[in-house]
Amino acid sequence: MGNKVIINGGKTIVKVRNINIGGDNPPVFIAGPCSVESREQILKAAVTLKEIGVDILRGGVFKPRTSPHDFQGLGIQGLEYLKEAGEAAGLPIITELMDEKHLKIVAEYVDIIQIGSRNMYNYSLLKAVGRLNMPILLKRGMSATINEWIQAIEYITLNGNENIILCERGIRSFDNYTRNTLDLAAVPIMHKETGLPIIVDPSHGTGIKELVKPMSKAALACGANGLMIEVHPNPKQALCDGDQSLTFTEYREIREEI
Amino acid sequence: MGNKVIINGGKTIVKVRNINIGGDNPPVFIAGPCSVESREQILKAAVTLKEIGVDILRGGVFKPRTSPHDFQGLGIQGLEYLKEAGEAAGLPIITELMDEKHLKIVAEYVDIIQIGSRNMYNYSLLKAVGRLNMPILLKRGMSATINEWIQAIEYITLNGNENIILCERGIRSFDNYTRNTLDLAAVPIMHKETGLPIIVDPSHGTGIKELVKPMSKAALACGANGLMIEVHPNPKQALCDGDQSLTFTEYREIREEI
Amino acid sequence: MGNKVIINGGKTIVKVRNINIGGDNPPVFIAGPCSVESREQILKAAVTLKEIGVDILRGGVFKPRTSPHDFQGLGIQGLEYLKEAGEAAGLPIITELMDEKHLKIVAEYVDIIQIGSRNMYNYSLLKAVGRLNMPILLKRGMSATINEWIQAIEYITLNGNENIILCERGIRSFDNYTRNTLDLAAVPIMHKETGLPIIVDPSHGTGIKELVKPMSKAALACGANGLMIEVHPNPKQALCDGDQSLTFTEYREIREEI
Amino acid sequence: MGNKVIINGGKTIVKVRNINIGGDNPPVFIAGPCSVESREQILKAAVTLKEIGVDILRGGVFKPRTSPHDFQGLGIQGLEYLKEAGEAAGLPIITELMDEKHLKIVAEYVDIIQIGSRNMYNYSLLKAVGRLNMPILLKRGMSATINEWIQAIEYITLNGNENIILCERGIRSFDNYTRNTLDLAAVPIMHKETGLPIIVDPSHGTGIKELVKPMSKAALACGANGLMIEVHPNPKQALCDGDQSLTFTEYREIREEI
Repeated sequence: MGNKVIINGGKTIVKVRNINIGGDNPPVFIAGPCSVESREQILKAAVTLKEIGVDILRGGVFKPRTSPHDFQGLGIQGLEYLKEAGEAAGLPIITELMDEKHLKIVAEYVDIIQIGSRNMYNYSLLKAVGRLNMPILLKRGMSATINEWIQAIEYITLNGNENIILCERGIRSFDNYTRNTLDLAAVPIMHKETGLPIIVDPSHGTGIKELVKPMSKAALACGANGLMIEVHPNPKQALCDGDQSLTFTEYREIREEI
Repeated sequence: MGNKVIINGGKTIVKVRNINIGGDNPPVFIAGPCSVESREQILKAAVTLKEIGVDILRGGVFKPRTSPHDFQGLGIQGLEYLKEAGEAAGLPIITELMDEKHLKIVAEYVDIIQIGSRNMYNYSLLKAVGRLNMPILLKRGMSATINEWIQAIEYITLNGNENIILCERGIRSFDNYTRNTLDLAAVPIMHKETGLPIIVDPSHGTGIKELVKPMSKAALACGANGLMIEVHPNPKQALCDGDQSLTFTEYREIREEI
Repeated sequence: MGNKVIINGGKTIVKVRNINIGGDNPPVFIAGPCSVESREQILKAAVTLKEIGVDILRGGVFKPRTSPHDFQGLGIQGLEYLKEAGEAAGLPIITELMDEKHLKIVAEYVDIIQIGSRNMYNYSLLKAVGRLNMPILLKRGMSATINEWIQAIEYITLNGNENIILCERGIRSFDNYTRNTLDLAAVPIMHKETGLPIIVDPSHGTGIKELVKPMSKAALACGANGLMIEVHPNPKQALCDGDQSLTFTEYREIREEI
Repeated sequence: MGNKVIINGGKTIVKVRNINIGGDNPPVFIAGPCSVESREQILKAAVTLKEIGVDILRGGVFKPRTSPHDFQGLGIQGLEYLKEAGEAAGLPIITELMDEKHLKIVAEYVDIIQIGSRNMYNYSLLKAVGRLNMPILLKRGMSATINEWIQAIEYITLNGNENIILCERGIRSFDNYTRNTLDLAAVPIMHKETGLPIIVDPSHGTGIKELVKPMSKAALACGANGLMIEVHPNPKQALCDGDQSLTFTEYREIREEI
């Protein structure tokens, strides 16, 4: 394979409170709605997901939407709801950071900072989170090569932060049957090249809720260290990504089967 | 999802001698060298692979090589070696058909006719095998959309032959780290759209031998009905695709683990 | 650049009756309907296009349609109409060959044999036309790399036929705004790599009739040796590719402006 | 075509000092080195390019390099050199902005702010330049669809700034013969969809210096409002993108021929 950027001797374990991600640890389950939409919505999601067996609660508050006319997230207010929900359910929380201006407050509120697909090439932002000492979830750019992804990791590690969890979320291809093409070979490749934990997001990776279960199983079978799945109390009324969101019942079925 | 071409009520079982492929039957293991290179090579492969637990022997005799300067296969002579090897080991055999001129003899010698990736759009050839009454393995074109693949199937079924096994073998993407991008979501998608059995070829699908094991596990986890894997007595001396071929020992390890 | 397959010292001129294609000769104009639909349609197209200034008449009789349910062409009957139309207007004719079975009759009727995008990897067909001594128009595969295209040329030239005209017709990309992505850089690249004449098909290359004029100008500006454009007496009633076909009036405007 | 975001009635003219870009104005020539490397280098480039007929001087000072180990630009010091060089030659200047932290100083020093390909999805940065009242050059993301590009424009215009010049710089495809695939159809498409001026960057669009001339001609032939070309006093010693940079002599030849 290519040049390696082996970190921590090839078996990095990233610690999120008392959860160990990576290596031979059991897979971590991250779930929640695409966006925090209201205090009630995220509280309900948190408590229900905790009961189903989720480890970490996700919820977007700053949303990188392709169109400026789409819902852009609740911002700081959403961050507060998310924190309250995480505390109520006893779950660590993760949200996406899009702008260095919000770095300080986001770092204060959440347990993991997510760098989304559109910002994988935002080297200023990568350097900024590289100066923190907390877990970063780095999604693959939607058309990033393996080598570009590895080099994006280096923008973080060279600034001192090695608490990195990778996330394969599908790449852009010529076919638009699925929203993206989930590239599961990236799981063993990134393990070999970097030694970092890598989780898979089958919700964005396919964009079709019926595909979430089979692709979740496939992801774990080839060694993924966890799954990040979109679950919404009422997908049909979701302000974003309703087509790929599961109901609690659908998610419980997957969680139990795995 | 898209328009469906549900065949046989959605649960086609393709029968190859006493092996049932598809539905809830156990996965089928197809293995062998990229090319039949000599009588000794294919005989040795057949006997060893049978002992390891392979169900069907593969071996190319007409090779669709990108360059006309590369080894083009042994042709009819290779077909005879392949047949002899299959009989010696008690294994059904599969080989690729590239040219309608060879249809009759290939149909007479082998148990399954393979239509390769480069010929998925060769509608004349598809119609020709559609007039047969024997199993056809139809690989996905290297940049075929799901819908184009479904329509290629119809070129066969409309001519009467519904004994079709699909094969996902990786698609072309912007990244050249792997030879192709293995699109495992195609497995549940094609099950839903066609009801046909689908197997996965992780050898061409990645082009990297270290990735064959994890991607084989992932393929079965999301429902693949079998695996087609390149195995060669001596990959370093293979006349084609040495980089992605496993040794017998490496293949045995995968076969036993699954 | 890459390895070169320089033919004829790098400046091949392909002769079609009294028309010289390639080198410093003026660009050649090929036009006509996607399909020959009736005797009247192709006769009318031939006479009108001749008057507008077209050099060669195109018309499909064997159509490689993605769906077997779509119009597949008039076959031999269409070939006769096309020949009659060409003779009536005094124009050489070109049609696509899909199947070696029709090689002899097609070679007898037409002045140039077209190998379409879906058959660029059909090495049996390439070898067969390589044994002829007449002009072949070789379209680029819809996702063929430059190097694969060069090697496809070799399948023809190694069999003796160097009368090859290349045709860039757009490649597959992640964007579906246009039908294909017209890769005009292929024009100077293929000139440098092969020395063969290359024409551009902006109709398939974009799939949008409004883009035919600007892309025709761009193609000639970077050195294309001709243009192949779809023109139909009544695009709205065309049996295929109506969206990208021009009316006679629209085509005349382009022809006069260039 | 798709939904239109017609700005200024479809014929926006962007004014940069006394240069009018867009509409029926003559094409604008932007040239300069990939990076400002030293005071001497950029001064020499400025004076020579002015004499050759360049309208606007380009030079990177903040460089979005894929690897953090590569030269990252001279930063503020480079900005001062660039400004001095522009003044010495009487040329307006353009440089790329990567980080909102530098917005104020960059806006003060340069005549046009460039948003690079990697930041087309950086919506925070787009909003920030949308609040300025000065020309913005918005490059297409390396795998951005036409519709995503249009929506990125809206992130700027909705914040009040309509002084936008677009730049097609090649998209990512399956072929790596060229660095990118120059999508010239984007020129007439973006004219129709937005009415904004669009220039073409054949240097990044191909990555091969021999292709800069033919693709420059093609770009202007299909309506591009200008060209941005990399020129370096000594491409072989360039700190970035040497392979695609022209010498002054090579650039002069192109400039004179057009």
